[in-house]
Amino acid sequence: MTEAELIMARADELATHSSRTDGIERVYLSFEHARVNALAAKWMTEAGMATWQDAAGNQCGRLEGREPGLPALVLASHLDTVPLAGRYDGILGVLSAIAVAARLRSEELPFAVEVVAFGDEEGTRFGTTLLGSRAFAGSWNRDWEELTDEHGISLGQAAEDFGLDDIALAARDPESLVGYLELHIEQGPRLEDAGRALGVVTSIAAARRLSITLTGEARHCATPWELRHDALLGASEAILAIERIARASGSPATVGHIQVQPDAVNVIPGEAEFSLDLRDETAAGRDATWELISAELHRIAADRGLALDVRQTHVAPEVVCAPELRDVIRSGIRSTGDAEPLELFSIAGHDAMAVAAITEVAMMFVRCKGGISHHADESVMVEDVALGVDALHAAVLARAGRDL
Amino acid sequence: MTEAELIMARADELATHSSRTDGIERVYLSFEHARVNALAAKWMTEAGMATWQDAAGNQCGRLEGREPGLPALVLASHLDTVPLAGRYDGILGVLSAIAVAARLRSEELPFAVEVVAFGDEEGTRFGTTLLGSRAFAGSWNRDWEELTDEHGISLGQAAEDFGLDDIALAARDPESLVGYLELHIEQGPRLEDAGRALGVVTSIAAARRLSITLTGEARHCATPWELRHDALLGASEAILAIERIARASGSPATVGHIQVQPDAVNVIPGEAEFSLDLRDETAAGRDATWELISAELHRIAADRGLALDVRQTHVAPEVVCAPELRDVIRSGIRSTGDAEPLELFSIAGHDAMAVAAITEVAMMFVRCKGGISHHADESVMVEDVALGVDALHAAVLARAGRDL
Repeated sequence: MTEAELIMARADELATHSSRTDGIERVYLSFEHARVNALAAKWMTEAGMATWQDAAGNQCGRLEGREPGLPALVLASHLDTVPLAGRYDGILGVLSAIAVAARLRSEELPFAVEVVAFGDEEGTRFGTTLLGSRAFAGSWNRDWEELTDEHGISLGQAAEDFGLDDIALAARDPESLVGYLELHIEQGPRLEDAGRALGVVTSIAAARRLSITLTGEARHCATPWELRHDALLGASEAILAIERIARASGSPATVGHIQVQPDAVNVIPGEAEFSLDLRDETAAGRDATWELISAELHRIAADRGLALDVRQTHVAPEVVCAPELRDVIRSGIRSTGDAEPLELFSIAGHDAMAVAAITEVAMMFVRCKGGISHHADESVMVEDVALGVDALHAAVLARAGRDL
Repeated sequence: MTEAELIMARADELATHSSRTDGIERVYLSFEHARVNALAAKWMTEAGMATWQDAAGNQCGRLEGREPGLPALVLASHLDTVPLAGRYDGILGVLSAIAVAARLRSEELPFAVEVVAFGDEEGTRFGTTLLGSRAFAGSWNRDWEELTDEHGISLGQAAEDFGLDDIALAARDPESLVGYLELHIEQGPRLEDAGRALGVVTSIAAARRLSITLTGEARHCATPWELRHDALLGASEAILAIERIARASGSPATVGHIQVQPDAVNVIPGEAEFSLDLRDETAAGRDATWELISAELHRIAADRGLALDVRQTHVAPEVVCAPELRDVIRSGIRSTGDAEPLELFSIAGHDAMAVAAITEVAMMFVRCKGGISHHADESVMVEDVALGVDALHAAVLARAGRDL
């Protein structure tokens, strides 16, 4: 079995650790989280690393440099998933990092190498993303411990049940780090369209997440049209307006969640609550699009006699990858034979966004099939995985000032 | 306390029997169902009736006529509710019937009078309506016993837990009945608009209920617009098309339920399932509107690359009230001083639809505030309740060939 085949087999093995039988779902501080941490720890140990689980439940491994205790270059991504996920988003970055560490075990580098498998990037369980990497980056907010999952279990309780004492203690001293590199599947079709296996990420998109609630009046379905204040009709109009405006602005926008009350077949919805995930290459572009959407939401609410409530649940500016580390990624990709690597910005958010608060970050994308991710059909080619590991290995050596 | 004030107080007392603390919800074969049956039985007994709970969990009371064992004129409605209900829909009909029975206890009528409080009209728990009245009318379908509630409990299991042996045994011999009268709040604004307390129902609208599913592809929110097949965008377009078409056709239509999969903030919905409740004065009008909607659903699905699946969950033709019994209702209302009672058709379904299978039916509407029903704000005036009881009493006497 080649190194890339081993990675594919490990991704398959991780996929078996799911909380559901109709697909993959693995959320923060769950039984499945503990199981995949144990697997990652075993593979890190086999790669020659010292391993530990940090105070946030992130699984870590460390390879010392030419002397013990040197600051570390971190290679990382995440092991949690969305509901009904694929098997590579986040996971490929962790497995590739472990493979690179295995190659580096006898090198004498001017820094340590650490691999981190973050426990929460997607935010599936508690609705707030990047919990693992934000704890790592010292951005933990104690209010998050009051967030509850769909069963009413608080994050604080779940952490205690998982065996964690104080998540905030996961914060890393910036002095202990020299930088951060993350390999990730593209989650879009640009590499495939360009016929490239790998790409250099220039920046990560600015994002906002909002919870939008329209409130009308729940009424019997015999109510005449002119007396109706149907919250779902307002939401439907709003969702189509979001598509129209965001598409024209070039800002990716998604309404992934909707819920109506009282949610009965023969009662006009009195309330409709839906999510909006809005991205753009820059925070300014994102906010300009939101202003257009917001104006339209107010118009729709007024026209239909609905109350409008907008709550922001997440906001992040664009994160620009550090120029020196981008060069390192570029030279890593060049070493695989691609003389002029494609540069592209990431629409999706990544752990690198959180880690950018304490050290320089850069990312490499690996081509995925049809731009599909967050779905069981997520697919990468074993040949591309082999190139990704080679490029990440070469990038680490480039950071050390050495050729492959 | 006047008779009408007693009815209002009893409606308030029934409202305290709810499965939720944020409003009224009382569903078929629940603990609350048993509690309100016991209350209704107590009030029926106080009105001089013999009482029993039938094989379907409907609470019944009987006042013999001038000799024992005569066929019965049934006065009925239901005690179950939608989620977050008001306190009069169905309930006012049962309480008014008990009040009329109390007035009739010393009359020697040429028929018995029975009051029936049906256990399920709304269909809240098992998704299928009129379960109580359809059992009474001998239209029980054993397949319904496989229907499950939101907790996965089957109707058959719930019936057994409630202490029922065989719901089908609730079927009444048509020979034992002379007719059926139902008093109900209008659930619309026509009486209020016309300044009338009471109205004669001419017919009950034809109805269809459908479950509509659009299936696209669940993808990461970084997916470019041109690669998206977003089921919720399709559903939003469909819901607005339903409003446009049904409004133009004059057929009341409601989308009261929607659910998307995987229902995650950062994943494009791969599936959207929603309900459609479509009514019209006639089955032909209803079906003509549905054909227009169906064509538009196919167009939307094709445009957005979505699969469309439509499943019918309920269908009922219009039910025309029996001319002789309509005259009886009309003369009952006239006796209250309204010389030319308003005639109107019912957009909402009622137990009378089911009972029409075995005996002649007619209905009287009572004005409600602002056309509001299926909501905590449902409201009737005590003066109208007094008129309703007088009119229903007079209607029973008119059916007996006697004046008040």
